[in-house]
Amino acid sequence: MIPQNPWTTLASKTVYTNPWVKVREDDVVRPDGQRGIYSVVEIRPSVGVLAFNEKGEIALVGQWRYTLGRYSWEIVRGGSMEGESDLVSAARRELREETGYEAADWSLLGTVDVNNGITNDVQNLFVARGVAFHGARQEAEEEIATRWVPFAEAVRMALDGRITEVCSVAGILRYATLAGGH
Amino acid sequence: MIPQNPWTTLASKTVYTNPWVKVREDDVVRPDGQRGIYSVVEIRPSVGVLAFNEKGEIALVGQWRYTLGRYSWEIVRGGSMEGESDLVSAARRELREETGYEAADWSLLGTVDVNNGITNDVQNLFVARGVAFHGARQEAEEEIATRWVPFAEAVRMALDGRITEVCSVAGILRYATLAGGH
Repeated sequence: MIPQNPWTTLASKTVYTNPWVKVREDDVVRPDGQRGIYSVVEIRPSVGVLAFNEKGEIALVGQWRYTLGRYSWEIVRGGSMEGESDLVSAARRELREETGYEAADWSLLGTVDVNNGITNDVQNLFVARGVAFHGARQEAEEEIATRWVPFAEAVRMALDGRITEVCSVAGILRYATLAGGH
Repeated sequence: MIPQNPWTTLASKTVYTNPWVKVREDDVVRPDGQRGIYSVVEIRPSVGVLAFNEKGEIALVGQWRYTLGRYSWEIVRGGSMEGESDLVSAARRELREETGYEAADWSLLGTVDVNNGITNDVQNLFVARGVAFHGARQEAEEEIATRWVPFAEAVRMALDGRITEVCSVAGILRYATLAGGH
């Protein structure tokens, strides 16, 4: 059985927009038949990269997260841009911009989504291998540090709270579990 | 070394608000010294619950996710409410509302955060045991189905894409990895 959409959208209007986010307010009929408003924060599809060097270390990037008010270590991540041909291109760009590295081999680990009922962010997780340094090219508004850590240590960080960013935790543990043959 | 906040907030104004979401626009000085605007989508702290019955099965809840336009199986999750005394209370309420179950034993598995640079959602993951059925009491606007699945099957679902909701993937794999003694 394929579940059917129990919602009906009667009308939709944009109530706020900037280059990264659009907030939409829909007039809906809810599954229980009641009329209501549903606000959706539209975010472009994003990418996450588990980049490994020849020593089996993974690239972690650190930055101050303005929205959280603290520093955060994460896998390489970012949003796709308008007109970007595909999500591997977005992943290549983010890896290069955040670490200065390019990678020869790319594979898709799967997608995860941030569906808290408000945003529609879908993050595509990639595994990148065969990295080579091409010179740092950071995004102008960001200060991003890079560390290469043994993958087993990244797994420990995802378990003990040193990594809390949820796409990084999901990506690292998904890869670790698949690699471990569960 | 404790990293210092490299951003300066000059002013802050609310540009959109409803009972669940507030969108804030801050005038900032970026780490590189440039003036700019930073939009923050403020979401209240949320909870996720890995609820186990005496057979070692975990409660998964299914619902149509309006923002994604598809059905999604997830752990029990939800936002905390204004005036809710603590996050365990929020977790108890969500478990009861979404599944009709209450649980005797609660422990914190840790937190994960959705820090995509836009929202400030922090999700507290709990493990609940000693469940007993008290009668379904669903939230009015939601149609939520409950399934109890063997935990090993939930792990497979988090790996093969049947579960993609990122807090569920992170919570299930974090618990599985810790329980597996990695």
